[in-house]
Amino acid sequence: MSLGENWFSEAALGYAMSLEIEEKLHEEQSPYQKIEIYKTRTFGNLMTLDGITMLTTRDNFIYHEMMSHPALFNHPNPKDVAVVGGGDCGTLKEVLKHDSVKQVTQIELDERVTRISEKYFPELCESNNDPRAILLFEDAIDWMKNAKAESLDVIILDTTDPVGQAKRLFAAPFYKDCLNALREGGIVVAQSESPLMDMEILLGLRDEMEKAGYIEIQTIQFPVATYPSGWWTATLARKGQKFGDFREQMARHRPFETKYYNAEIHKASSVLPEIMLQALVV
Amino acid sequence: MSLGENWFSEAALGYAMSLEIEEKLHEEQSPYQKIEIYKTRTFGNLMTLDGITMLTTRDNFIYHEMMSHPALFNHPNPKDVAVVGGGDCGTLKEVLKHDSVKQVTQIELDERVTRISEKYFPELCESNNDPRAILLFEDAIDWMKNAKAESLDVIILDTTDPVGQAKRLFAAPFYKDCLNALREGGIVVAQSESPLMDMEILLGLRDEMEKAGYIEIQTIQFPVATYPSGWWTATLARKGQKFGDFREQMARHRPFETKYYNAEIHKASSVLPEIMLQALVV
Repeated sequence: MSLGENWFSEAALGYAMSLEIEEKLHEEQSPYQKIEIYKTRTFGNLMTLDGITMLTTRDNFIYHEMMSHPALFNHPNPKDVAVVGGGDCGTLKEVLKHDSVKQVTQIELDERVTRISEKYFPELCESNNDPRAILLFEDAIDWMKNAKAESLDVIILDTTDPVGQAKRLFAAPFYKDCLNALREGGIVVAQSESPLMDMEILLGLRDEMEKAGYIEIQTIQFPVATYPSGWWTATLARKGQKFGDFREQMARHRPFETKYYNAEIHKASSVLPEIMLQALVV
Repeated sequence: MSLGENWFSEAALGYAMSLEIEEKLHEEQSPYQKIEIYKTRTFGNLMTLDGITMLTTRDNFIYHEMMSHPALFNHPNPKDVAVVGGGDCGTLKEVLKHDSVKQVTQIELDERVTRISEKYFPELCESNNDPRAILLFEDAIDWMKNAKAESLDVIILDTTDPVGQAKRLFAAPFYKDCLNALREGGIVVAQSESPLMDMEILLGLRDEMEKAGYIEIQTIQFPVATYPSGWWTATLARKGQKFGDFREQMARHRPFETKYYNAEIHKASSVLPEIMLQALVV
């Protein structure tokens, strides 16, 4: 069959994911990109940036939980957190669920992404007024270069794909600035694309992290229906220490709700299939 | 963007997966269904039945390995195996990698699926002449009803979606016939659809298995890029016993290659996220 006109499609490398659209709710050209919001038939609202799927109401929880909780429960006591990108505020909301966290600084380039998310994804933005949250709208490359040394426990790189300007967020100089900003034992986590479609990006990202001087690098996997191939990864790297045990009892008895993450998933997500073990030589 | 004419699309429930096509290699109406083979740009060959994706060269390994090895390594000594459906022979090939297996009977309704697979997916059919393999082309419902009691160790239900005639393969009377054909401790495993898109089918299948009298039911999860949502499940059920430990050392030192499955993945695949735990009440 061929899809009718009322479908949004994102195609790359011979594969496409499409969602059926009921109406376009918003469209604007911000100073940085074209932002579109669609009402889909079965996935709630959809946000795209320059035609690339960022999130849907229905399935964003998996991505946001897996970008946050594994890194935060891998750290013994995360107090100061930075989120790079993350303009939809879904990651920010998950981070703020952790009582140990005293401050989260979110550095998103495009303020319009956040303002539009407040309107179309209000459930993700409900913690934006938490006094622990600082929302900055500026270039994260500069921010990280100027960040105080040893001032952060966890850095979450909730970025777009490594295309155009965002490429610099996938390279050793930026990871080195993150390393500098992290305290001993601090953890950086980056979204690291699909193991089926983008293995070279994942391998490149791990190489750049290694060059930057992290002690241990760990890739985790999880499903994201609306990203290419439906199979996604995040990659964690730690400063000065190996990962060791995570706070399993805390994860098991966490005083907040999750829809995907749990303590067993924490462990299972770091188990890699043969094709990844062979490619990553872990 | 809207996809051009040279894309195959499968759409359901407001979501579509599409593959870019270089050419259609084959099309026929068998006595049972329309079988089409496409050469895709980046996923190798694609087979569809009545417009529904069955497999691609590139990503079928995950599905076939996960339909076979977890069930086979969960069994202490699987000798006699039946594959229901599975006409592309990818599951059969994985089963025959196990030295303990003395006989595999495959019961596929449509001989044309197998003949066409031999041509377009020869790598999956390379064990079809193994003397341990018996390929039957007939109705599995009847076959299972007439199967000798306590004659099988593992039954793999590698079926199409529960639509039309195939619905009977997702219902208690058929699962009861499977139970009857299994020896004590025997295991049936069924492909059980997407946890994101088809939770009711998964729940229904588990209910029917329970009604049929299996002692323990276990759902495992894995990615399949070319199935709806990219996130898939299989459900295992055991006769007369709980699952207990799998043959972990054998799985770890298996004398054959896999591309997805390994002993750690075996364990990790049965770990379920919160939404599944809550829905399945496991």
